[in-house]
Amino acid sequence: MDTPIAQDTIAAIASALGPGAIAIVRVSGPQALPLADAVFRGSGRPPSQRPGHSVCSGMVCAAHGEPLDEVLVLIFRAPRSYTCEDVVEFHCHGGGQSARRVLRRALAAGARAAEPGEFTLRAFLNGRLDLTQAEAVQDLIQARSERAADAALQQLRGGLRQAVAAIHEEGLTALTPIEAALDFPDDEMPTPILAPIGPALERAAAALGRLLETATEGRLLRAGVRLVLAGPANAGKSSLFNALLGTERAITSPQPGTTRDTIEAAWPLHGIPITLVDTAGLRAAACAIESDGIGRTRAELGQADLQLLVLDGAGPLDDDARATLAAPAPAGRLIVLNKSDLPPALDRAALPPGIPVIAVSALTGQGLADLRHRLVEMLDADLLSDPAPHAVIAERHRLLLACAQEELSAARTLFDPAAESGWVLVAGHIRAALEALGELSGRHYQAELLDRIFSGFCIGK
Amino acid sequence: MDTPIAQDTIAAIASALGPGAIAIVRVSGPQALPLADAVFRGSGRPPSQRPGHSVCSGMVCAAHGEPLDEVLVLIFRAPRSYTCEDVVEFHCHGGGQSARRVLRRALAAGARAAEPGEFTLRAFLNGRLDLTQAEAVQDLIQARSERAADAALQQLRGGLRQAVAAIHEEGLTALTPIEAALDFPDDEMPTPILAPIGPALERAAAALGRLLETATEGRLLRAGVRLVLAGPANAGKSSLFNALLGTERAITSPQPGTTRDTIEAAWPLHGIPITLVDTAGLRAAACAIESDGIGRTRAELGQADLQLLVLDGAGPLDDDARATLAAPAPAGRLIVLNKSDLPPALDRAALPPGIPVIAVSALTGQGLADLRHRLVEMLDADLLSDPAPHAVIAERHRLLLACAQEELSAARTLFDPAAESGWVLVAGHIRAALEALGELSGRHYQAELLDRIFSGFCIGK
Repeated sequence: MDTPIAQDTIAAIASALGPGAIAIVRVSGPQALPLADAVFRGSGRPPSQRPGHSVCSGMVCAAHGEPLDEVLVLIFRAPRSYTCEDVVEFHCHGGGQSARRVLRRALAAGARAAEPGEFTLRAFLNGRLDLTQAEAVQDLIQARSERAADAALQQLRGGLRQAVAAIHEEGLTALTPIEAALDFPDDEMPTPILAPIGPALERAAAALGRLLETATEGRLLRAGVRLVLAGPANAGKSSLFNALLGTERAITSPQPGTTRDTIEAAWPLHGIPITLVDTAGLRAAACAIESDGIGRTRAELGQADLQLLVLDGAGPLDDDARATLAAPAPAGRLIVLNKSDLPPALDRAALPPGIPVIAVSALTGQGLADLRHRLVEMLDADLLSDPAPHAVIAERHRLLLACAQEELSAARTLFDPAAESGWVLVAGHIRAALEALGELSGRHYQAELLDRIFSGFCIGK
Repeated sequence: MDTPIAQDTIAAIASALGPGAIAIVRVSGPQALPLADAVFRGSGRPPSQRPGHSVCSGMVCAAHGEPLDEVLVLIFRAPRSYTCEDVVEFHCHGGGQSARRVLRRALAAGARAAEPGEFTLRAFLNGRLDLTQAEAVQDLIQARSERAADAALQQLRGGLRQAVAAIHEEGLTALTPIEAALDFPDDEMPTPILAPIGPALERAAAALGRLLETATEGRLLRAGVRLVLAGPANAGKSSLFNALLGTERAITSPQPGTTRDTIEAAWPLHGIPITLVDTAGLRAAACAIESDGIGRTRAELGQADLQLLVLDGAGPLDDDARATLAAPAPAGRLIVLNKSDLPPALDRAALPPGIPVIAVSALTGQGLADLRHRLVEMLDADLLSDPAPHAVIAERHRLLLACAQEELSAARTLFDPAAESGWVLVAGHIRAALEALGELSGRHYQAELLDRIFSGFCIGK
């Protein structure tokens, strides 16, 4: 692969911002070591005269000498670094101020602020990672559960790369004899050696199918599960929200329409990364404010992975409840009949069939353990039932794998061992499948694709 | 100083949690290097056989060999480390999952989860930092502005330690001749050499006074400024909140009582760390929900550093507004007359004297630049008027300095060069002052004090 050599030196804060002991400013590029010499004051030799994989301590100072922070400096020499370039890391005090000062100093000394993912982009361009591994870096950072981390780590270590390479190899096995035959002039073209073609296409298609089956799981592990509480006003959504979280996060009251702004909170459930969202009650709105809130509720429902439809189990099924149940639901749904501490008054037979129903009392806690268990079951049975971690694919992968699958399917349909022509078409479809796989691994890429992938990264990686 | 040698090895995540490229797990103690050997797989020599201040790369693996994350390992050998003990840092992928897995692995391999601040506590106990420097570590991490970072860094580098040591020295200068005289039996006691005593006490008192003057500034730089928008319902607080932030963070409507839950947002103003808080309007509450919201508003006002009292400048001064203005205000206040785009109808003469008034329109933006400028002036003139960074003291320091000041004041009152007795009392007060200063620097300490200080630290520092 062509290895473009970056001419400029980039810098960014590479640790999360927020309360923490240590923050890291990372610098990569041909000027990283001279830059470190310029901004760092320590005892002993300057950074540029130290070996790679070494650490020294001292002070980052402003141009006029005023100290900006006490730091450790890590030195990595090309190509033994994350980017395969010279890299210097400044380990500052955490919390943000120190790292921002050190970053500003590095920029003043000639570095350019790195774009999101630019360090990993350089690692990719310099051939250290293929594109699926580069993507796995960000997946690992964004992993919200053990399982997501396992899957991303496996992908980072080449799990998806190898699976795709194996499919690519099967495609080549099928393509090679055909292309060999196509090299002859039309009238002399021999029949290709047929035996390997059919089985290779079969194996490739089966492997593609297995990868594509993990697409839903991949999405949920990456993004986590968005669990939205919705339903008519006064059904007790905020009370249930508080009861599930175990805190008084949302204001509750007996009056319908209490909640207006949507409120969300992280709610890890049995290792599944869940964002719990409380919303304004759905009803023919009493005022403009509630309308605004209800608009926000509908937007939330559109983004939900799972909807908890909260109804008042101690009241009749009114029009607001009916309207809620009749609304189209792209996501999974569970009906929660709240207020089970009161005599039940809702006619369960009037509920739409096919949606699981569970009765709880947010007030007394009755049924909440069942609800949690049921949610784990729903998520687990549908999405997380496979105990072994394996590569799970992202949307970009799914599209390219589906494209490869379609092309291979066309090739298999056209493939007729008895035919003496049609090989050009078969070869064309196999080549298209291989191109899709090559784009997946980054063997072929366009600048635009790289922009799209790496712009989703965090700064500093 | 007694140097207790820690027997156990501690571990914690030392970087902030959240989206970021790199996360750090730090291990310190006698077992740090053997632990690294047990959990880390890389090429070349194991960590325990590498020199201090070196870096190696590889994989942290579970006990049964399954990889948990790709890491860099930093090795620091006692006493050349943050804690003066053997320290190993694992640099994992950011985002939390990887760091948590590596931490769990370190704990399984025999480390104990570090208490908040325990690494810095060990640095203090091992004599690397005095107590004011240890406190400055956390101040630097929590610094919310350049100025706060400058002050904390100066304190970390010994600014406060030296100031306190100088006062301590003056106290000793005054105490030594008195104690020399007290060594004689009562009937033979000579008059102490008087000349140095008075001037030394004077200098010590003056220096104490200068340090104490920075107490308010210290509090604001540490905690930031909490700026609460309060006032009658429908004065346009949420509109002003949104206009200042430049986003539609809060729901707004023409109806009184729209805001219920308090909403806050970081609003850095001219380098001053400000938290802007929007609250429910204060009025004879229309319902229980609003009452709850109004209760939260009053609680917020109690914690405010600065109150923005937002009134409707286009309406008369009604009872709700009068009640708001009459409420006791421990903090600074600024009256904002909103809706300056409408004809003014509020009688400014009816406003209480002594509170600055400024007219704005959250709708058109008129007056907002003036408001921002006025806020900077108020904060700057009162609190941030001194351009040079210097040590700014925390509440613990203030109390001890005030105690020392009181004791020295008593000593100065009792000090009578002409008297032939009374020296025992003078010496007692000076000794009490010196004890307070010794407690400040950690020269003398009690376990309980250390618990209180270090429990406020973040984990991993």
